Amino acid sequence: MPELADLFAARARNVPPPIFSPDAPGTVPTISLAWGLADPALFPRAALLSATAEVLEKDAPAALNYGATYSGLIEQIVARLRASGVAAQPEQVLVGHGSSQILALLPEVLVDRGDVVLIEGPSFMGAVRRFAQAGAQLVTVPTDAHGLDTDALATILRDLRRHNKRPKFLYTIPTFHNPTGATLSLERRHALVALAAEYGVLVVEDDAYYDLRFEGEPLPPLAALDRDGWVMRVGTFSKTLAPGLRMGWACARPEIIQRLQMFKWEGSSGPFMTRLVARFCADGQLDAHIAALNTHYRHKRDVMLDAIAQHCPADVQVDRPAGGFFVWLRLPPDLHAAAVQQAASEQGVAFVPGTACYADGQGTDTLRLAFSFQPVEQIEAGVARLGAAMHALRQHRAAR
Amino acid sequence: MPELADLFAARARNVPPPIFSPDAPGTVPTISLAWGLADPALFPRAALLSATAEVLEKDAPAALNYGATYSGLIEQIVARLRASGVAAQPEQVLVGHGSSQILALLPEVLVDRGDVVLIEGPSFMGAVRRFAQAGAQLVTVPTDAHGLDTDALATILRDLRRHNKRPKFLYTIPTFHNPTGATLSLERRHALVALAAEYGVLVVEDDAYYDLRFEGEPLPPLAALDRDGWVMRVGTFSKTLAPGLRMGWACARPEIIQRLQMFKWEGSSGPFMTRLVARFCADGQLDAHIAALNTHYRHKRDVMLDAIAQHCPADVQVDRPAGGFFVWLRLPPDLHAAAVQQAASEQGVAFVPGTACYADGQGTDTLRLAFSFQPVEQIEAGVARLGAAMHALRQHRAAR
Repeated sequence: MPELADLFAARARNVPPPIFSPDAPGTVPTISLAWGLADPALFPRAALLSATAEVLEKDAPAALNYGATYSGLIEQIVARLRASGVAAQPEQVLVGHGSSQILALLPEVLVDRGDVVLIEGPSFMGAVRRFAQAGAQLVTVPTDAHGLDTDALATILRDLRRHNKRPKFLYTIPTFHNPTGATLSLERRHALVALAAEYGVLVVEDDAYYDLRFEGEPLPPLAALDRDGWVMRVGTFSKTLAPGLRMGWACARPEIIQRLQMFKWEGSSGPFMTRLVARFCADGQLDAHIAALNTHYRHKRDVMLDAIAQHCPADVQVDRPAGGFFVWLRLPPDLHAAAVQQAASEQGVAFVPGTACYADGQGTDTLRLAFSFQPVEQIEAGVARLGAAMHALRQHRAAR
Repeated sequence: MPELADLFAARARNVPPPIFSPDAPGTVPTISLAWGLADPALFPRAALLSATAEVLEKDAPAALNYGATYSGLIEQIVARLRASGVAAQPEQVLVGHGSSQILALLPEVLVDRGDVVLIEGPSFMGAVRRFAQAGAQLVTVPTDAHGLDTDALATILRDLRRHNKRPKFLYTIPTFHNPTGATLSLERRHALVALAAEYGVLVVEDDAYYDLRFEGEPLPPLAALDRDGWVMRVGTFSKTLAPGLRMGWACARPEIIQRLQMFKWEGSSGPFMTRLVARFCADGQLDAHIAALNTHYRHKRDVMLDAIAQHCPADVQVDRPAGGFFVWLRLPPDLHAAAVQQAASEQGVAFVPGTACYADGQGTDTLRLAFSFQPVEQIEAGVARLGAAMHALRQHRAAR
C-alpha cells in the first residue's frame, strides 16, 4: 500500500513543534503582558476606510488585477529611508507580508546547514527560532543597556576568522530592542559598521521600532552609516499602522533583494494592499499617526514603569526604554523567571520569560513585559499581580 | 576583500532568468490577448468598499492586529467545497496569497532534486516553470479535447513503476483547462482517481476556473470522487472576485496542509484581507457575482470565437470552451506559432505561443488567446489583426 509520507521531500519530513505560548490558561482570567500586539484603540479605522475608498475609486483596474507590488509604496519607503539618512534606491527595496516574512526568507538566501549566524542575546524569539530551524549555528553576542556589545563582537569575529569561519549575517535590533528596550549608542553604531566592513559581515538591522520614539533625538540607522553595502535595513508598518495588514520591507543591495524575491513564492505583496498602505502613508498622514501613537504609548510605558516601581520588589531592576513596546526586567538572584512565571500564572498574568529570547539557555533571571497592547488599567492590574506573585514567592520561601 | 556573493546559500547562488513575456512592444500599439487577467469592468468595487467598511466597523481589533487566517473564511471555503461534493474539514484547508503561492510551495514539501513530477501537455506555464526550477524531472502526460489522457497516464505510471519510480505528484487542471479550455470527462475523472489510488499518486487538482462555467452542468471535482485522500484540490478567488486581493486556497490531507504552512514564511494570509474576502463572499454575494461574471465572459468567448471564424484561415482549429478564460488554437502545418507570433507582433497583437505551455518543446503548432481581459471591441480588433497576420504569412510564402 503506497504511503503519503513517502512522498515528502527531505526538508519537509518533520513538522516542528508548535510555538511556545506563555498564555496557557491559568486558574483566573489572564492579563497577558506577553505579546507585542498593537493597541487596538489606536487603529486608524476611518483613515483606512477613506484610503480604501480612494484606491477603489481611482485605481481599481490596477489595484484589483494581477500585478506587481505598487511602485508608489516603494517610492514612499525610499523617501522615508532617505529622510533617515539612508541613500536608498527603489531596486534596493523589497516589500513583504510583514518584516517577519522577510526575516524568515533570509536563511533561504544565506544559510546552508551549519553556517554561523550571529544573534544578540537576548533577541526577537521568532527570528531566532527560524534561524535555528534553518540549520544555522547560532553564536550569541552579548548586549547591555547600550545595545550590542561591539567589543565582544570584535572578539567573536576574530575568533571565528581564526577558525576560518565567516558568519553569514548578524541579526541586530538597534533601536528600542525587543526584548530589552535598549538602543544602540552612536559610538557603537560606528564601531559595528566598521566591523561589518572589516570582516565582510552582512548586518541585518531590524528597526521595527525605529519610529516609536517617545523622547530624545533619533540616532542614524546603521544603514545610514554604512558606506560599503554591508547593512540590510528591515522595517515594518505593523507597529506604525496595523499588524493585520501584514506589510513590511527590507532595503539592501539589489543582489540580496533579487534573491529574497526568488523565495517569495507569492510574487508581489498584493496590488491592492500595497496601494492601500501607500494611500494611508501619503500626505503626511502616517507621520501624524506616528506622533499620536508615541504620545499614547509613552503614557502606557510610564504607567507600566510606575506600576513596577509600586508593586514589584525594590531589587527588581528595570531600564527606562525611550520607545518601543517592551520593558525588560532583571530579577534578583533568589527569583527565577520560571518560578515567577508559575506564580504569575496562578495570579492571572502572563509574560515572556527571558529564556525564550535566548538561543543558548541564558535569561533565567529576566522577563519581558509588553505595554503596547493592554489598556492602562490592565497594565496596572497585570503588574500588580506580577508584583504579588514575586512577593508571594519570597514569603513562601521565608516560611519554609 | 570579502565578497557578498560568497555569503549566498547554494540554493540562492543563481538568479533565474526573467519570465517569458509575449508583450514586448511591437511597431504598433499592441492588443494583448496573452495574459489571463480578469476583466476590470467586472470588479465589484462598491461591494468591496462595503465589505471593508463592515470589517473595520465590526471587527477591527482582530482584523488589524497580529493573528491567524480568519476562520470564517476557512468555513466558507469548506462550505463551498461541500456544496461541490468534497467532504472537507477546516484542518484540510490552507489559505494562501493566490493559488499560485500554494502551487509554488508544493515542491518545497514534495520535491527532492530529480524526483518525477507529472504534468499535462500543455499546462499552466507558471506552475511548470516553478516545478522545473525546483529540480523536478517533468514527465508530460498528453491531453486532448476531453482533458488528460488517462490511458496514456496508466502506461506512464506502469513504466515508471517498472523503473521503481514513484512520481511525487500529478499536476492537472481538469476544468476549462489553461491553456486548452478542455474539461476532463466524467469517465476520465473516475479513471484518474482510480489510478491515483492504485499507484499512490498525489493528484494536484488546480480547479481555478471551476466556477466560470458558461453552459452545461458541473462535473464532480476529482476531490469529490477520491475516497483515499490522494487528491489535493486548489482554488482561487482571483477569477471570481479579484486577482489583486491575492487569495487562494488548497484542500488536502492535514499532513500536507501542515507542511505547506511550514514553508509559508509570512504565516497567516492576513487577518484583514481574509476577513475582507470572507465578508464579500457571505450572504450569497459571491454566487451572485459569479453568475454575472459568467454571463459577461460567455459573451466575450462568443465574440472571440466568432472573430476567429471570421478572420482566421478556415483550417485553423479551435474547440469551444464551456468556461474559463482561454481559447486554444491549433494551426495548420504551414503556420508555425513562432512565425505567427512575429507576424502578429508586427500587426500589433500578442498571444502566448503554445511552446510556452509545454515543458518538452511541443506546441509549435498551437497558441493561446485570452478573452478574459480585453473589452469586446479589442477582442475583435485583436483577432482581426491575428487573422491578418496569418493570411499575410501565407501570401508571403505563396509569393516566394
